[in-house]
Amino acid sequence: MLFMDVHENLTGVKAADVAEAHQKDLAIQDQYGVDYRQYWVDEAGGRVFCLVEAPSAEAAAAVHKEAHGLLPDHAYPVTEGV
Amino acid sequence: MLFMDVHENLTGVKAADVAEAHQKDLAIQDQYGVDYRQYWVDEAGGRVFCLVEAPSAEAAAAVHKEAHGLLPDHAYPVTEGV
Repeated sequence: MLFMDVHENLTGVKAADVAEAHQKDLAIQDQYGVDYRQYWVDEAGGRVFCLVEAPSAEAAAAVHKEAHGLLPDHAYPVTEGV
Repeated sequence: MLFMDVHENLTGVKAADVAEAHQKDLAIQDQYGVDYRQYWVDEAGGRVFCLVEAPSAEAAAAVHKEAHGLLPDHAYPVTEGV
């Protein structure tokens, strides 16, 4: 399944910090069968979007939890446009 | 600039309908210097995410307005993670 995770209210978030957190996700995601494919950072709005392929929203969240503890506010199941 | 457009409250939205709208965007976007790169549809939640490269949020919205009239609820300026 594909999900768009949205993290909100990250006031002052910096793209460099998100890059670091993302690397932590990548380092452990295989254990959960999860693939954090892409992400986008809205620094001004304190918002991060993560596109993640995962067996479930819970599995995707488990990676975030173990890697850095920053859980998303929303995990929307999505289909990708072509 | 890169934006994540979010369309909400699209109750009953179908991926096929969004695909059609997206094609209409692609057909005219060059006139505005805009590139609708990717999109994702949350059918259950009535939500669409559009990743768009544009000179401004207004230019991106102008394409949607001319192509099919469906304007986003949000247009977040984002940087893409690597």
